[in-house]
Parts: sequence; C-alpha cells; structure tokens
Amino acid sequence: MRIGIYGYGNLGRGVELAAGQNPDAEIVAVFTRRDPQSVKTLTGCSVVSSSDILSYKDKIDVLIICGGSATDLPEMTPYLAGHFNVVDSFDTHAKIPNHFENVDKASKMNDKVALISAGWDPGMFSLNRLYASAILPEGRDYTFWGRGVSQGHSDAIRRIKGVRDARQYTVPCESALRLVREGKNPELTTREKHTRECFVVAEEGADLERIENEIKTMPDYFSDYDTTVTFISEEELKKNHSGLPHGGFVIRTGKTGINKEHSHVIEYRLQLDSNPEFTASAIVAFARAVVRMAVRKNFGCKTVFDIAPSDMSPLSPDELRRTLL
Amino acid sequence: MRIGIYGYGNLGRGVELAAGQNPDAEIVAVFTRRDPQSVKTLTGCSVVSSSDILSYKDKIDVLIICGGSATDLPEMTPYLAGHFNVVDSFDTHAKIPNHFENVDKASKMNDKVALISAGWDPGMFSLNRLYASAILPEGRDYTFWGRGVSQGHSDAIRRIKGVRDARQYTVPCESALRLVREGKNPELTTREKHTRECFVVAEEGADLERIENEIKTMPDYFSDYDTTVTFISEEELKKNHSGLPHGGFVIRTGKTGINKEHSHVIEYRLQLDSNPEFTASAIVAFARAVVRMAVRKNFGCKTVFDIAPSDMSPLSPDELRRTLL
Repeated sequence: MRIGIYGYGNLGRGVELAAGQNPDAEIVAVFTRRDPQSVKTLTGCSVVSSSDILSYKDKIDVLIICGGSATDLPEMTPYLAGHFNVVDSFDTHAKIPNHFENVDKASKMNDKVALISAGWDPGMFSLNRLYASAILPEGRDYTFWGRGVSQGHSDAIRRIKGVRDARQYTVPCESALRLVREGKNPELTTREKHTRECFVVAEEGADLERIENEIKTMPDYFSDYDTTVTFISEEELKKNHSGLPHGGFVIRTGKTGINKEHSHVIEYRLQLDSNPEFTASAIVAFARAVVRMAVRKNFGCKTVFDIAPSDMSPLSPDELRRTLL
Repeated sequence: MRIGIYGYGNLGRGVELAAGQNPDAEIVAVFTRRDPQSVKTLTGCSVVSSSDILSYKDKIDVLIICGGSATDLPEMTPYLAGHFNVVDSFDTHAKIPNHFENVDKASKMNDKVALISAGWDPGMFSLNRLYASAILPEGRDYTFWGRGVSQGHSDAIRRIKGVRDARQYTVPCESALRLVREGKNPELTTREKHTRECFVVAEEGADLERIENEIKTMPDYFSDYDTTVTFISEEELKKNHSGLPHGGFVIRTGKTGINKEHSHVIEYRLQLDSNPEFTASAIVAFARAVVRMAVRKNFGCKTVFDIAPSDMSPLSPDELRRTLL
C-alpha cells in the first residue's frame, strides 16, 4: 500500500516509522503546511507542500491525516475524503457523530473509504468495550488511563504565569482498579479513578505557592482530582520526563448463570513507551483494512467497529486460520 | 434472532442461559440425540429429537452446534451448514483448515453462513493475537491458560486404574508471566509456562504411589510439566472443585522507534468463573453477527477474524459510535 502522511508532528513521524516495520507499506510523501524545505524526515522520505496534495490522487492508496482534533481534522478529513481513501485519529468523543456524518457524505459521493477515530482510544479501547459488552450484556465496564503523559493537561499548566515547562501524568488508582477487577462493580467518582502528577519548571523568582494553587484549583483539568505538584529543574525535566509514555485498562465484569452466580472479568491493558508511535502503528494496520475495503468498493465513512480484523493483517485468511486461530 | 441449540451438555445449557440475557434472542428448541423426554432444560424451553432437525429449517435463524471437537463437529457442522446458518466451537487447532474447507463447501452451496471455532480460545484469544500482531509487527506473543480446569486432563487422570474421580487445574507460572510483561521476550519451555495441579479421589485401598507416578509420567498430558498430585475425599472434590473456572492471558510485546528504543505491552486477560457459560455468551454474540451476514448474503464459512465487531452488538452503528467509540 502506498501511504501519504498529511501533517508531520509526533503522529506523522510515528506513521513514517511504523510503515518501515510493514513490508507491504511504502511512504509516497509527507505533506506539510510548512515550507517543505524546512522539514527533515526521520527516514529521508520526500516532503511536499500540502497545497500540491491533489496532484497525488493517483499515487496514493491511503492518506493518513495527522492533524489535531480541535481545529484541523473537522476541516481536513471531510475535504481530503473527497479525493483520497483516508484515516484520521479524531478523538473528541462528543463530536464523533457530527464528524462521521460530514466525512461519510464526502467519501460516499466520491467513492472513497474513510476511517475516523483510529488509534487506541478511540480505537483498540473502543473495540474492547464493544466486544466485552456484547459478550457480557449484564455487566459494567470501566476505562482507566495511564500511567501516562497527557499533552492537554501539560499544556494547561504551561499557560500559567511563571511556568516555563511542565509535564503531567495521569495515574490510575490502584485501589479502584482492584475493586473493579474483583467484580465489585463500584461506583467511582472522578477523584477515585485517577490522580494527577505534575512536574513543573518555574521561571526564576516565580511564586511557587501561587502556581501550585492555580494548578490544583483549575476547573475541569485538576480541581476534581487529587493532584500533586513537584517543582523540578529544566535539566531534570529533560532527563526524566522527555518521553510520551501512556496506556491504560479497559475492564468489564459481568455475571452469568441461572442465578447469576458466576462472575467473569475481561481485561485489556496497554503499557506504551511511546503514545504517538503506538497510535501510529495501530493506524497503519487499520490503513491496510481501508485499502482492502476500497478495492471491494465498500465506500463511505467507517469506524474501527466496521473493520473485519482479518483485513488488518498482512497474512492471508488461510495463513491466519493456520497460525493465529 | 431465533436460535436452535444442537446438543445439550454444559455448552448447550450455557447458550440457553446466555440467550436469556439478550432481549433480541429467543431459543426455538434444543435438539438432542437422546430421548427428548429424558432431557429437562434449565429454563423450560422445548426439547426435540435431533432426527427432526430438518423440519425446523424455516423456524431457526441460526443453529448453535454444541458438540465435541474430536468426533461430533467434523461430521455435524458440514452437514448442518447445508441447511442452517450455524456456529460451532471447533477447537482442535491443527484441524481447523480442513474443517473450514468442508464447512465452506456446504454453506456456500446452500447459501448459508457458518462460523467455526467461536468462543474464547479459539475465539477472543485468537482475535487478540491477530490485532496485536498486526499493530506490533516486530514483537512476539504469548498465550497462557488458567488458572482453570482442563476437562481433557481431568479425563486422562480418571482413566487411570484406581482413580474414582479427578480434577486438573492448568496454572500459568507467575515468574514466566512477569518476564513476558517486562518485554524480556523470553524463550519459554512447556515446563516454564504452566504447572498442573491434580486433585484425585482414589478408590479405597488403591496404590496411591502408583497413581501419582502414572499421572506424573503420562506423556503429552503431564510428563513435560511440573505436576502436583493431591489425594482428597469425594466430599472435598464436590465441595471445592465442582466448578469449571478458566481463563488466561494473551500478551504481545513489541518494539517501535527509530532505534527500536520503545517497548509496548498489549495484554488481554480473561478470568472466568464458568468456562462453558462464558464460551456460550461469546458464541451468542457471534451468532448475532452470523444472522446479520446471512441477511446481507455474505455466505460461506467464516471465522472470528471475518466478523466486523459492530455486527456482534445489539446496538445500532449510530449508538455504538455515540456510546462506545
């Protein structure tokens, strides 16, 4: 499959690397809104101005759109789905139905396949919520995130006066995880599910007490959580907090039996050293399915729920049955 | 969906109970090779002789075949797939390609959909092996089973002279699990992955030493494992070992990054109080997909790899996107 990468941040770089791990994948070009001359790719693949994208219509089997969910993807994906088979990782859960509708219209009108919200959450976590709830209808599911870096929360801290840099970790509460795994079906408040650890580099002479207070009382981001703030030096931040690890748990517990006497636990866990590289790796596997669905003329907007798993593997159906079933 | 249950052992009873947890499912009848008068169902659904099965061709949307993999299913599934949409849980991994071919021929010739090898292994474990290997091509996966009762191993002990009853638990080795989770990619021998715990009720006056020795040296079943044998009373067996718990782990670890510097762990875990009831619950969700594929005239033999996850849920695609994505 001939892949185009639209947007070259952490995710785009991850797609470039993931393609290199799949012998059936080839990167045709990276498309950027910046001056192409100013962009150096990790593996030396060519960089093209995004304004030239339409001249690649016949050279690309699937275009992976690596933009942000807030403002980029709601514009980019419907537009590009009119010209290419596309995959995006739109992750604003509340706005997915609207995004789906816009992309579905564009892709159907132009005989393209578009997959939105691919990755791990939304993505593999969503799949596990679906499978587990279909199998155990009388049950309850829980999603925990972390331990991992939240870019959104780190950015929120950086906007505080006197903060030079910051890194925020979302941490699942072990005690809550334990209750869930034991099938206790607990009602958990926001505070009981996750804690937030903040590592902050302050400007010289900044009022640390004020900064800590502003973080801990910030609505939506921190005020509903037990939050710890640790001030560290810039060197320490670089040395110990430069990665982008993440992960989490999807757990469903449910009952079966004539008297509901049997409990079952289904748990899916990810522990990722690099959130963008893992997300990109999942996206490349989903992109393979998009190309195959396009060949079968199964056009329109899809989500991970619509993808037959066999379409994601480079192995043939026959090999899959022989080796993985 | 109107379900028929073909065969009424532990799995058939599980299907009967699982259908009761799904408002869109209804059991039309249980089909048995025994005298129907002699079979009492758990929830009172009707029992019919298996010789009358063909008169139900228009009354059943999907027939769930609850027979054994050794001799029942290789005969039953190809025959019944010529008349019904069917699901089975054929689990002799090495013979799946041959079984697939036989069932594919019968179902395609008669415009039916047949799903083979549904359940959790093969089934949900297989799906997780596929997803994880598609996402992390440079990695390795491990399947651990247990702690759980192996019927096959329990039966093997019961065949030993002087044994009245027995229960065998397959137990995953914690130390091996730890190495795998840490991404160490260990080479593990059979002995290092699982241990086997046997609880045996001996006939009065039997030679316990000989029995223990025969168990521990039994080829294929026990000789490659660290096996413990504990003799207990019949009462204790009934009291503490009458359930059929099972479960296990599918773990894949893999690397990404320009220098493969990032490790990732994907783990899927099941912890089941009742193996047959959970298997049946999974099968009923897969049966929903079979009925939907039949409506779309997507005929032939399928495996879990060919099932789009959305087809397994009672929720509409729209509801799925809104609530689970």
